[in-house]
Amino acid sequence: MAEIYDKQKTIELRRKHVGPSCKVFFSQDPMKIVRAKGQYMYDENGERYLDCINNVAHVGHSHPDVVKAGARQMELLNTNSRFLHDNLVQYAQRLQATLPKRLSVCYFVNSGSEANDLALRLAWQFTGHKDIITLNHAYHGHVSSLIAISPYKFHQMEEGDGDQSVHVAPSPDIYRGKYREDHPDPATAYSDEVRDILQNAHKKGRKIAAFIAESLQSCGGQVIPPPGYFQKVAEHVRGAGGVFIADEVQVGFGRVGSHFWAFQLQGQDFCPDIVTMGKPIGNGHPMSCVVTTRDIGQSFMASGMEYFNTFGGNPVSCAIGLAVLDVIEREDLRGNALRVGNYLSQLLTQQMEKHPLIGDVRGVGLFVGVELVRDRVKRTPATAEAQDLIYKLKDQRILLSADGPHRNVLKFKPPMCFSEEDARLVVDKIDQVLTELEKATGLHTQAVAVAENGPSKRARTCEENGRHPSSGKEHFNDSCRQEEAQCCDRLPVKRLRT
Amino acid sequence: MAEIYDKQKTIELRRKHVGPSCKVFFSQDPMKIVRAKGQYMYDENGERYLDCINNVAHVGHSHPDVVKAGARQMELLNTNSRFLHDNLVQYAQRLQATLPKRLSVCYFVNSGSEANDLALRLAWQFTGHKDIITLNHAYHGHVSSLIAISPYKFHQMEEGDGDQSVHVAPSPDIYRGKYREDHPDPATAYSDEVRDILQNAHKKGRKIAAFIAESLQSCGGQVIPPPGYFQKVAEHVRGAGGVFIADEVQVGFGRVGSHFWAFQLQGQDFCPDIVTMGKPIGNGHPMSCVVTTRDIGQSFMASGMEYFNTFGGNPVSCAIGLAVLDVIEREDLRGNALRVGNYLSQLLTQQMEKHPLIGDVRGVGLFVGVELVRDRVKRTPATAEAQDLIYKLKDQRILLSADGPHRNVLKFKPPMCFSEEDARLVVDKIDQVLTELEKATGLHTQAVAVAENGPSKRARTCEENGRHPSSGKEHFNDSCRQEEAQCCDRLPVKRLRT
Repeated sequence: MAEIYDKQKTIELRRKHVGPSCKVFFSQDPMKIVRAKGQYMYDENGERYLDCINNVAHVGHSHPDVVKAGARQMELLNTNSRFLHDNLVQYAQRLQATLPKRLSVCYFVNSGSEANDLALRLAWQFTGHKDIITLNHAYHGHVSSLIAISPYKFHQMEEGDGDQSVHVAPSPDIYRGKYREDHPDPATAYSDEVRDILQNAHKKGRKIAAFIAESLQSCGGQVIPPPGYFQKVAEHVRGAGGVFIADEVQVGFGRVGSHFWAFQLQGQDFCPDIVTMGKPIGNGHPMSCVVTTRDIGQSFMASGMEYFNTFGGNPVSCAIGLAVLDVIEREDLRGNALRVGNYLSQLLTQQMEKHPLIGDVRGVGLFVGVELVRDRVKRTPATAEAQDLIYKLKDQRILLSADGPHRNVLKFKPPMCFSEEDARLVVDKIDQVLTELEKATGLHTQAVAVAENGPSKRARTCEENGRHPSSGKEHFNDSCRQEEAQCCDRLPVKRLRT
Repeated sequence: MAEIYDKQKTIELRRKHVGPSCKVFFSQDPMKIVRAKGQYMYDENGERYLDCINNVAHVGHSHPDVVKAGARQMELLNTNSRFLHDNLVQYAQRLQATLPKRLSVCYFVNSGSEANDLALRLAWQFTGHKDIITLNHAYHGHVSSLIAISPYKFHQMEEGDGDQSVHVAPSPDIYRGKYREDHPDPATAYSDEVRDILQNAHKKGRKIAAFIAESLQSCGGQVIPPPGYFQKVAEHVRGAGGVFIADEVQVGFGRVGSHFWAFQLQGQDFCPDIVTMGKPIGNGHPMSCVVTTRDIGQSFMASGMEYFNTFGGNPVSCAIGLAVLDVIEREDLRGNALRVGNYLSQLLTQQMEKHPLIGDVRGVGLFVGVELVRDRVKRTPATAEAQDLIYKLKDQRILLSADGPHRNVLKFKPPMCFSEEDARLVVDKIDQVLTELEKATGLHTQAVAVAENGPSKRARTCEENGRHPSSGKEHFNDSCRQEEAQCCDRLPVKRLRT
C-alpha cells in the first residue's frame, strides 16, 4: 500500500530526477523504508530494522501525539507569524523555560541551517565584527555561509578560497586531538588555542564576532569537550567583544539525559549568548529555532532590518513543537536517555575487554561514540572495519553509522524511546561482527596483549559520568565528503573482505 | 477553543519572547487569527476576513485534501531522503512534468531562502565564477548570502559593505523604471543594461556566475518584465559563462493562470538554467525545491561535496506537495486564476477612470498590482494614501498589502480559489475608500482633468494580455525595511487623517 513502484523503479526515477549529490544510505544496496514506529523502521517487504541513528525522530517515529497535534492544527490554520497566534507565544514560553533566564528571545525558522545562519547574522550585527572561530571537523549546515565555517565540508573543496574571516580551532577531542586524556588540564589547553587565535587575529587587525561550536561535536566524531572548556572559551571570546554560539541542532532536547541542553554539561556557570536548535525539535517536521538574549535581539532590531521567515513559527510547527515537549516530559524520555544511555555505554565498554578494535567508548545519555582502531597504542583509525561493520549490521537489521574525520567512530543517536533490550541486541550483534572481523584480520590473536595497553581508564571514566579524558595534531581526511554525519556512504571506502 | 490567551496577553508574551525584529501586520492594531478556510481567515471573535494576500495558502487555507495527505503520511513515516521513498521520486517526476525537459534534476529543501542559496551554490560551482547580477528592489530571501543580493534589504543597511561581487541592474519596470511604456523596445533597453554590467565587470577582471530575478518582481512592486527581456538577458549572461536563475518562490505554481510558471510568460523560446520554488509549493508546509539541468547537477556532484538536507524531500513534504499539484489540477485553479484575475484587473482598470489616485493597474492571473500616485503625470508615489487604504480595508474585513520601493503598490496575490464575487467585493471597498480619501485630500476635484493625462493605454494593455509597457532612474526608498512584501508595517509611515 505504501509502495507505488518496485524498488528498482524507485532507484531509476531517483537517478533521473534527484540531484546526484544527494546520496542514499548504503549506496551498494540502498534501503526503501515505507513505515516506521518508535525506534523501528520497516522496509517494503515488512522487514523490521532497529534504528540507532535517527536523532530527528526524537520521541519515536510517527509518535501518535505529535501526528495528532500536527493534523489538528493543519485543519484549523497554518499561516505566517505576522498574525498573532497563541501557539507561537506558548511555544516560545515553553522553550524559554528549558533555558537559562537570560536566553529569552526566540526566532523561529525552518532548519538547523537557517538557525545557524541567523545566529551568524545576530552575532555580526551585535558585535559589529566579521570573523568567526569554528572548530576543526565542525559541521554547521548546508547554506553557503555555513559551508564557510564547516571544516568538515570546506576542507574538501579543491579551491579553498581561504576565507580570511574564518579561524579554525582544534577540536577538543581528548582521545585523538592535540591534548589528550593524559594532559593535566585539556580544557585550559584547548581554550588557550582559542585565545591564541584571537590574539593572532587582532595582530592582523581582524575582529571576532563569534565562536561557534556544537555543544557535543557530532559529525566531528562524537566528541565530548572537557568540562570547563566552554567557560574559558567564552571568557576569551567575550573579552574580545565576540559572542558564544552553542549549536544544539544535533544534540539538544534532552538527548544527554542529565540535562535538557548539552551545553549544560559544562556546568551551571556556563551560558551561551545564542543557542541554535534543529533536527529533533519537531520530530521530523521542518522547523527550528534560535534563542538569544534581549540585548542581542534589540541590537538586531536596531539595524532597522525586519526579520521575516515565511514558514517559521507557523501554528502547525508550533503545535508540533509543543507536542514534542509534552511527550519528552510525559514519557520521561530524558530519564530513559540517561538510564538506557548509561546501560548502552556500559555494555559497549565491556566489549572493549574482548575486542581490540574498540579504542574508545564515550557518551552522554543517548549520544554515544565507539571509536574503532587497528592499534590501540597508535590509535590507527579502523576506517574500513567500521564501514564493514555498518554493512554487516544492516544485514542483521540494525541501522548504525560511522563518522568523524576518519569515519571510524560508530555513532549512536537513536530515538529517545530506545530500550535496554535494544541496547543489548545491538551490542550482541556488534560483538558477533567484531569477533568475525578480528578473526579474519588476525587482530584476535593480539587481543590479550593489546588490551593491556588499552584505554581502560577512559572506559571507566565513561561509565561514571559519560565523559572521557585525550594529543597529536589531527590531519583532515580528504575522504570526508558529505554534509551530514549519519551516512556511511560518503565516498566509496574499501571494505574488508571477511 | 483555538484561543488560549486573550489578545492582550498574546501581545505581551510575544513582546517578551519573540525577536523584536519579527513584525506583525497592522502593528497599530495587530490581528489574531485562529482559523482559516479557502480565501477566508477568522479572528478570535469569529469575524471573517477576505484574504487577498496569502500566496502561501495557494489552494486555499487548510484545504482538506492537503491536510489529509499530510496527516496520513505523518502517521506512516517521516524520515530523511537517505532512504528510498516513492513519494520523493513521484513528486520529482510530477514537478518535472510542469517544466521544460532540460530542467530535470531536483533538490528538495525547506524554504525559498534555502532554495535560492542552493541556486547560488550550483551557479558558483558550475561556472567557476563568483559574481551575481541582481535586479534593483529584488528580494530573494533572509539568509546572509541572499541579503547580499537583495537590494530591497541591503540598501537599508547603514554599513553597506559594498560587496564587489554583487551587481545591481535596473528593475524592468515600464511604469516607474528607467525605460517606460513610451520606449519603443524596453526589453532590449533593459537587457542592454545587463550587458553593460557584464562588460564593466569584465574590464575589472570579474566574472559573472549568475543573473537572478523573480519571474515577476513581487516585493519590488508587482513588476511584469516586458516579454523578450529574459531571452536577451540570458543570451548576454550565458555568453559570459553565467547562468540564468528564475526565482519562482512567490509567483510559481499556476498563479499567472495562462502558464504553470511565470517565466513561461516570456515565451516558449525561453528556459532558465535554474528554477527556485517556495511559498505556495506546500500550501503552508515548510518545503521548497530547486530544479536545474543535468549538466549543472553533474558539475555540483563533481565538486566531491555531497548535498544533504535533513528535512528536505521527506515523505510528508512530498505527500503534501503531490496533494497541492492534484488540487491545482482537479479544481482547475489555473483556469480560475486566469478568469478571476482578468476580471479583477478589469474591475480595477475601470476604477482608474474614477480615481486619480490610481496611476497604474498591471497583472497576470492572480498576481495584480495597483500603483497609487498623487499625480499621474509626475507619478508621485501616494505612499501614505496606500497605507491608509490598507488600514481602512482591514476595518472592512479585507486583507490587502502595499509594497514596492515606495510602498504605494497594492499587491493582490490571494489564494487561488479567489472568486469573482470576492473580486467585486474588494474593488467595491477600494472604490469607497478611495472616494473618501480623494474627497479629504482634494484630489477628487482634479480627477477629470488628470484622468485625461492618465495611462489609459497601459490599462488596456493590461486587460488584453496581463502585461503593461515604462523612464526615470529609480531612487531607493530608505523606508523599505523589511524582508517580505506582504507587510504594510515596514516602518511607521505617516497615515492620512481623513
